[in-house]
Amino acid sequence: MALIVQKYGGTSVADIERIKIVASLVKRELDNGNRVAVVLSAMSGVTNSLVKYCNDITPFYDNREYDTVVSTGEQVTIGLLAITLQSMGIKARSYAGWQVPIITDNAFGKARIKEIKPDNLLKSLADGEVPVIAGFQGVESESNRISTLGRGGSDTSAVAVAVAIKADRCDIFTDVEGVYTTDPRIVKAAKKLEKVTFEEMLEMASLGSKVLQTRSVELAMKYRVNLRVLSSFVDAPGTLICSEDEIVEKEVISGVTYNKDEAKFTLANINDVPGTSAAVFEVMAKEGINIDMIIQSGSTGAKTNMTFTVPDTEFEKAKKAIEANKEILKYENFVFDRKVVKVSIVGIGMRSHSGVAEIMFKTLAEKNINVMAISTSEIKISVLIADEYTELALRALHTAFGLDEEAAD
Amino acid sequence: MALIVQKYGGTSVADIERIKIVASLVKRELDNGNRVAVVLSAMSGVTNSLVKYCNDITPFYDNREYDTVVSTGEQVTIGLLAITLQSMGIKARSYAGWQVPIITDNAFGKARIKEIKPDNLLKSLADGEVPVIAGFQGVESESNRISTLGRGGSDTSAVAVAVAIKADRCDIFTDVEGVYTTDPRIVKAAKKLEKVTFEEMLEMASLGSKVLQTRSVELAMKYRVNLRVLSSFVDAPGTLICSEDEIVEKEVISGVTYNKDEAKFTLANINDVPGTSAAVFEVMAKEGINIDMIIQSGSTGAKTNMTFTVPDTEFEKAKKAIEANKEILKYENFVFDRKVVKVSIVGIGMRSHSGVAEIMFKTLAEKNINVMAISTSEIKISVLIADEYTELALRALHTAFGLDEEAAD
Repeated sequence: MALIVQKYGGTSVADIERIKIVASLVKRELDNGNRVAVVLSAMSGVTNSLVKYCNDITPFYDNREYDTVVSTGEQVTIGLLAITLQSMGIKARSYAGWQVPIITDNAFGKARIKEIKPDNLLKSLADGEVPVIAGFQGVESESNRISTLGRGGSDTSAVAVAVAIKADRCDIFTDVEGVYTTDPRIVKAAKKLEKVTFEEMLEMASLGSKVLQTRSVELAMKYRVNLRVLSSFVDAPGTLICSEDEIVEKEVISGVTYNKDEAKFTLANINDVPGTSAAVFEVMAKEGINIDMIIQSGSTGAKTNMTFTVPDTEFEKAKKAIEANKEILKYENFVFDRKVVKVSIVGIGMRSHSGVAEIMFKTLAEKNINVMAISTSEIKISVLIADEYTELALRALHTAFGLDEEAAD
Repeated sequence: MALIVQKYGGTSVADIERIKIVASLVKRELDNGNRVAVVLSAMSGVTNSLVKYCNDITPFYDNREYDTVVSTGEQVTIGLLAITLQSMGIKARSYAGWQVPIITDNAFGKARIKEIKPDNLLKSLADGEVPVIAGFQGVESESNRISTLGRGGSDTSAVAVAVAIKADRCDIFTDVEGVYTTDPRIVKAAKKLEKVTFEEMLEMASLGSKVLQTRSVELAMKYRVNLRVLSSFVDAPGTLICSEDEIVEKEVISGVTYNKDEAKFTLANINDVPGTSAAVFEVMAKEGINIDMIIQSGSTGAKTNMTFTVPDTEFEKAKKAIEANKEILKYENFVFDRKVVKVSIVGIGMRSHSGVAEIMFKTLAEKNINVMAISTSEIKISVLIADEYTELALRALHTAFGLDEEAAD
């Protein structure tokens, strides 16, 4: 008998018919002799509508009130699933975040879970009941106010619940069949991964693969929670996210990802002296903006150019900061480019295989794709290119690293 | 400086524009130098949609889960109003029922308030903050689960909050301008009452006037809360519901009401012996059905007929109970009529004025309206008539008792 946490996203609970299918998936796991705790998102679209209400009043809303408003979507779905399970003869009860309780810090609007007290959930499970828990939300215990974890937070809720109740597995049900080698909407030959390591999934999540929220993967990796991504629409095995030692035959490259949320700035004719890039980081950090890639072009005498990228969502803020800090940054002028994309290859096999970078750059060069910036880690290489080459680059790299569905046979 | 509770119904918070108007009404009271606590309903239509979700799964839902689902509408509006007030520079914070806390019994779906702990609200008010409280909901403290008070419960929440924080007045904002002598949609000459006593309002509420929930009037009467009904759409003084001694010049009749939620049964040829009507009450009580009016027709020998009414919403249940208890009730056959209406005149002045009943019956007789049953209290007379005469009866009685707008001058 295993203890399993199942998490269902917004499209999986979009209406009463979908909620009934979710209930049948819960029942199937119970019929297998397992115990199940469920974590739910709001019906798809609902949270967006609630966010819009707040923004329609003022973009400068109190995050505590915002959280009060936007956390209601999950409270609806947990009650509805509990009713549905009960109508099938299955004992169930709903838990809002404050009822579990899921205790968070006071960073309302993007709170972090501090602790989940497991006693109520464990008691439910011991009573043969399916606890149905609201994802995305918790309670800040000092003020007794509802907090939310930021968009996509329900994945994190699910993994945190799995850790708290020591679940054997955490199944993330969504509207795709698992984690793919790349975006199947762009590359027809993309294939579903049977297994992927936490480390790779973490890179892929932070590099733009929208399947799982980054924080949920971090948490699962830290506590070694067996995480599975699968579809509530199609009955298929999905992708297991697990430790490296559970994967016998490792591919060199597991995936090719892309992220269009990039904006590139180039500061022209800055002083080529130590501390210039530090100044850029400092100015951006003050505004809470993370610099992603940074590159200093070959110096020609005392002057040089510096190129860096920030999330495109922070573009306006970054531009203002650059303009306001001309004295500190000491540039002559600056240009920007928002039509860029970061394409990355991810694979734990990179550690033991040389020549990966060579294949990547050769492939891009063959397609005449200019690389504007590069960043690397132990298990990934990212390049910044013009976004009009996104599809071409993805397809070429996918083929070059032997990931195409046919090539895999 | 007075302490005022303002309650806004669903149409008053139907969208962001309406919520901004509510905020301006709160501000006006603050600008008058008063302190304000606000109680809100859900946006109009939202609770109905949530109820429909539950019913679409099963009509036999767990009331605790139903309450979890249907209580979310108020949680949305309190957050939105708090954000709106803050955007106008007014300190405000939202309170869900469990955050106040508003503690109820465990009759989920139609819970009764046991206690409102005033400390959090009083602290907010002392801090110069406007507490914005979710109506309709509370928390059952034993199980720590959300409860709701039954439809229209926000009026009761508002009065209970007014009692708990010892408010000087409770203003119920709605989409009508106050309490009218009769339904203005039917009788053009209906006029708004400046003042009405708790006792009259209680009769009018329970006799079908939908302006206020009966329980809220009961509570206001018990604790002598000055209650005002007024419009959030039109700037007009509304109607004050108060103690009898605050009304100097009392009208004999304050209002004419009607209620179409009536179904009439007649048991034919029953034994004309003591205990027969007791048997009818007993059978209905077992099913949780309240008998409203009851009349035994003139006896012809050993057999007689008995007519009684029940709420039409309970019609099917009542019919089944009558069929199932033929042995106990000892009727020969029974007939029913669902096309009936109860028309009532209400007035505290009836106590000291004779001849009121005479005017009523004479007026109906002149219009050839047949009276099927009668019930009376100290301050009201109700008659059951065929529902096709509703408008005619209302207009005739309204005129006969001198309530018409012109006649009042």
